[in-house]
Amino acid sequence: MLDTDRMVAAVEAYIGNYNRSDLDGVCAVFAEDAAVEDPVGTPPRVGQAALREFFAVGIAAGARLTLDGPVRCAHGHAAFAFHVDLTWDGRATRIDVIDVFAFDAQGKVTGMKAFFGPANMGAA
Amino acid sequence: MLDTDRMVAAVEAYIGNYNRSDLDGVCAVFAEDAAVEDPVGTPPRVGQAALREFFAVGIAAGARLTLDGPVRCAHGHAAFAFHVDLTWDGRATRIDVIDVFAFDAQGKVTGMKAFFGPANMGAA
Repeated sequence: MLDTDRMVAAVEAYIGNYNRSDLDGVCAVFAEDAAVEDPVGTPPRVGQAALREFFAVGIAAGARLTLDGPVRCAHGHAAFAFHVDLTWDGRATRIDVIDVFAFDAQGKVTGMKAFFGPANMGAA
Repeated sequence: MLDTDRMVAAVEAYIGNYNRSDLDGVCAVFAEDAAVEDPVGTPPRVGQAALREFFAVGIAAGARLTLDGPVRCAHGHAAFAFHVDLTWDGRATRIDVIDVFAFDAQGKVTGMKAFFGPANMGAA
């Protein structure tokens, strides 16, 4: 079983690399064939090429991620609450999100689900 | 598609009923054949009889639930961060949890997954 420290480190690497605009670092958190459903209900983006394209958009938009509370780890999964600050259509915007990562035995993220909706988006 | 307000109301009913020790009210949030995996990685408890037995233990232990941040809703799912206060083995204990509810079209919870592990449990 993957240990908690490695899962928490992966979450912190994801957020830290995102905030440093380090696209390679963000993608390195994910397995080659990882599936990202962001937000839940949209078609999953699958594989490194699709993920790179997806995360590049957020990084280019200057999105900054801040953890809200501890990472919760259970049986190869990490769930974490955070908020995103970005400028959207000229306005400072905040989005409250909960992500769930599923990990493989090597500590790479094989699946990410992002939970948020219109009610979680508003003026910062 | 189930609307956000109904999903948020269900989360609030779950927490409010739990904190009022209203076992019927807690169970009423769930569909007849709902599956609860709490924590993730343990065998799911399936159906109202199993859920009643499970939630009765937490209520009898005096567990109190407090939401930490907004409920995140996406496509028939609600994710929410919260903490549980309870007295465990004579000591005031806090457990940080993220739950994900999946809803049916009638607004009942058909699946609940609770994410937390030993690192999320400590002195209150």
